[in-house]
Amino acid sequence: MIAVLCFDVDAEAAVLAADERHEANAMAISHQRFGPEVGVPRILALLAEYDLPATFFVPGETALRHPGAVERILADGHEIGHHTHRHRSALGHGPNEERRDFELALEALQRYGVSPKGHRAAMWEASWLTPSLIAEHGLTYDSSLMDRDSPYILELGDGAEIAEVPPHWSLDDWEQYAFLPDPPIGSIINSPPQVAAMWKHELDSMRRHGATFVLTCHPFLSGRAGRIEALREVIEHALDSGDVEFKSAATVAEATLADPTSERLKLRPSVDPS
Amino acid sequence: MIAVLCFDVDAEAAVLAADERHEANAMAISHQRFGPEVGVPRILALLAEYDLPATFFVPGETALRHPGAVERILADGHEIGHHTHRHRSALGHGPNEERRDFELALEALQRYGVSPKGHRAAMWEASWLTPSLIAEHGLTYDSSLMDRDSPYILELGDGAEIAEVPPHWSLDDWEQYAFLPDPPIGSIINSPPQVAAMWKHELDSMRRHGATFVLTCHPFLSGRAGRIEALREVIEHALDSGDVEFKSAATVAEATLADPTSERLKLRPSVDPS
Amino acid sequence: MIAVLCFDVDAEAAVLAADERHEANAMAISHQRFGPEVGVPRILALLAEYDLPATFFVPGETALRHPGAVERILADGHEIGHHTHRHRSALGHGPNEERRDFELALEALQRYGVSPKGHRAAMWEASWLTPSLIAEHGLTYDSSLMDRDSPYILELGDGAEIAEVPPHWSLDDWEQYAFLPDPPIGSIINSPPQVAAMWKHELDSMRRHGATFVLTCHPFLSGRAGRIEALREVIEHALDSGDVEFKSAATVAEATLADPTSERLKLRPSVDPS
Amino acid sequence: MIAVLCFDVDAEAAVLAADERHEANAMAISHQRFGPEVGVPRILALLAEYDLPATFFVPGETALRHPGAVERILADGHEIGHHTHRHRSALGHGPNEERRDFELALEALQRYGVSPKGHRAAMWEASWLTPSLIAEHGLTYDSSLMDRDSPYILELGDGAEIAEVPPHWSLDDWEQYAFLPDPPIGSIINSPPQVAAMWKHELDSMRRHGATFVLTCHPFLSGRAGRIEALREVIEHALDSGDVEFKSAATVAEATLADPTSERLKLRPSVDPS
Repeated sequence: MIAVLCFDVDAEAAVLAADERHEANAMAISHQRFGPEVGVPRILALLAEYDLPATFFVPGETALRHPGAVERILADGHEIGHHTHRHRSALGHGPNEERRDFELALEALQRYGVSPKGHRAAMWEASWLTPSLIAEHGLTYDSSLMDRDSPYILELGDGAEIAEVPPHWSLDDWEQYAFLPDPPIGSIINSPPQVAAMWKHELDSMRRHGATFVLTCHPFLSGRAGRIEALREVIEHALDSGDVEFKSAATVAEATLADPTSERLKLRPSVDPS
Repeated sequence: MIAVLCFDVDAEAAVLAADERHEANAMAISHQRFGPEVGVPRILALLAEYDLPATFFVPGETALRHPGAVERILADGHEIGHHTHRHRSALGHGPNEERRDFELALEALQRYGVSPKGHRAAMWEASWLTPSLIAEHGLTYDSSLMDRDSPYILELGDGAEIAEVPPHWSLDDWEQYAFLPDPPIGSIINSPPQVAAMWKHELDSMRRHGATFVLTCHPFLSGRAGRIEALREVIEHALDSGDVEFKSAATVAEATLADPTSERLKLRPSVDPS
Repeated sequence: MIAVLCFDVDAEAAVLAADERHEANAMAISHQRFGPEVGVPRILALLAEYDLPATFFVPGETALRHPGAVERILADGHEIGHHTHRHRSALGHGPNEERRDFELALEALQRYGVSPKGHRAAMWEASWLTPSLIAEHGLTYDSSLMDRDSPYILELGDGAEIAEVPPHWSLDDWEQYAFLPDPPIGSIINSPPQVAAMWKHELDSMRRHGATFVLTCHPFLSGRAGRIEALREVIEHALDSGDVEFKSAATVAEATLADPTSERLKLRPSVDPS
Repeated sequence: MIAVLCFDVDAEAAVLAADERHEANAMAISHQRFGPEVGVPRILALLAEYDLPATFFVPGETALRHPGAVERILADGHEIGHHTHRHRSALGHGPNEERRDFELALEALQRYGVSPKGHRAAMWEASWLTPSLIAEHGLTYDSSLMDRDSPYILELGDGAEIAEVPPHWSLDDWEQYAFLPDPPIGSIINSPPQVAAMWKHELDSMRRHGATFVLTCHPFLSGRAGRIEALREVIEHALDSGDVEFKSAATVAEATLADPTSERLKLRPSVDPS
């Protein structure tokens, strides 16, 4: 069984994408900065302790604001993935703006010598253009779509193809822990031991169904002490089970693309069936 | 004691009914497609493993978009029920539109040779016209009203009558698992083992009160690994109790209509008492 | 220690107060009718089984719509309290309308020979006029204010006084179980055993602090099988503790008014302190 | 390990800051008054029982409305901190209004002879001006920012510096217990034993990460019997662990400022990185 640990280092971008007026909210900005400044080092220490690889999806703006976090992630040998520039949904701003944002993110990462292999849409809200942008810019996988719970090959229709490494809301710390009144990023704070229990159940269930465990955590959330210890509990549970291999999303994507038995899906925008 | 397992195969219709602009949201569409493409086969396998009948309520649009899912359900011998065409509430669009949608759904199902015996309103939001549409089109039961927790006969006032197989929000996976920010279909992700515990408690309590356990799950939700294993836990609990019979909604409705001791209620639109 | 079981028989009024257009929603109306038609008889049976008194707060409109429920409650010897006529907040419609609604509720109850001793505001949203209306119409207590967790005497400033039997959101089934999308009466469905655990903890804690356990349940919610069994668990826990006496709200109010050691508070509308 | 118990005595101000029309809501006002009138004495008794120091952040308006509560807190030797005058966010009203509110709060506390050492923003929503107001008025610490989970020194850029004692949403009773429909201060009521379990887990986890446990409770919430007993459980867990010292926020701030090894951060408003 394969497990992929993803850390989306949204930082300030997650609140500023909602509205730039949140720059005036010193508490909200400090709340988000906790991610790259405290959460990332703690997460890196946890990964080092168990010698696990991971994938950090870093918005371009976050990379520019927090060079130290990017450098630490790279120094520890982890993958950095493309996570848009401004952490805005791909929807609602049009294809030109999506392309421009995609390329700004690439430029930001390239300042650190990073040529990302994969992309994850902000809030996973990909458009039907997103896969083409990924392929066109030489990336090899996406991690935003949810029509499977195992990796597959996504055929883009023009001969191009990318891998999809599917995430899901149920394996995301945001729904369990995020809380801010303004912007209203979340309204519930769940107990870390209960979250750990849910994710361990999910891991065991996914094994039974041949699925791939793709967990998404955010350093501004799961870098908090109680949550990082819940994450440790999940990791130890996986390791104790004896058959779980932790891999980066890029490694999983590469293996998927190379495997002739991989499931293949065609990119199919939704259409009115009537 | 009788248990009815219902699976509402909403798929894309559940988000497109809110607003067709969600067609542009590749993630949301993929999230919904998981239901017919992965969830339905898993649910069918689970039912086969325990040799249980079930009722699949399939919107007309879903049937047209996902012929494979419909055919698998039929091949396994399960009931397919009417679940509107577009998965829109019966309220807010007027009686002509409700009738038109009702008939489009019948046409869609008839392409697969299905003449549904029962109807369930989208989001259970039936109008006072809905029961008449059901009777007029030769269906024999509804599963949307909540004034009882056991099946009864609903007298429509013109001599016609249908059976009602009452669902309830507390026996629905949507309130426990659904999460999407846009459209905002839900905002909480509960832990599957906690949901299983709640439903097992409900089953045991309903036995004590002579009620019928009518569970509603959605393949895009309960087809996920952790949730399908929670559903298995509920099924095993029911089977272990020794006195629970699983039946399709149509079978329950037929028995209700044939039973002279069934409770009979008149269709009574609400009126101002003053 | 004293425990007061209150049942607010809101029925249709709880959704029609939000907007009369919900009359068109057959499911929502049926959902609310479950309260007086199924929930009330089950609750009466539960109370009879343990020989406990209780107080049923019944809106005037509900009394008119559901004579059978009112008669059953009276036949079992329970108290019926005033719960407004239309189940609308006392706020937002002005003092004339509040007075008119108060009197309509009295008229409705008087059709059953009921002269209520106490009043509870809809959603507990009392105005500063509400206590005067209560006193002026010869009722002796209110159960809407939350500045204490034990009964007290409320002095109205003109020599009049009533008792207050304080409820609280944490001892209400609505926040735990209510769910309807439209009107949005609630968005969470908690597990009955977890609710029972919370209320048992509250009972034990209130004993330690000399408080009075005033529990509010709604037949359309707690009349459901899983919830009524949770309520039974709370009742049995209280009885097992050996020192809990169940009393009606009127009995508690009467004792409070008669007790010279009762705490006395003056009615004090809020004022700007600056 | 250090633990700081903070009690934010918001009382009526928490609802009136949303809209002064809530003055008309007798229930909501009574709900808030429970804090200073019942919650504060219970919390003081709990602290006395374990001989623990604590910090009470009291809005100026609350101090003027509830002199008895202020006097009791002072009589028991606890710290009183500045918590704005009207309990409004520092955002949205401009710097002149923030300064004016800050000074009104000082005046209100000074009527009781209190010269507060520290400040906490209402809802923790500090502006970038807030730290300067704190330093300018001779206070020595803030407790609103969340970029660390241990105290640090905040350099204001003009040579001035204050201590920051970081709070966090996960260690706040508001998110777990607050419920009012109007104003909508919260929509979930969690079970006190579950909250105690979460906070005990957080305490143990924070020890592992060298963090400082800064708990925030509100007397109108945690003064309720079930919640105060949950708080007792957390306190006893901390005491049982043998290495936890309870300190007031002012004591922690003073030690932070005096410690040459304290972390030092510069006040850095957020800027567009591009």
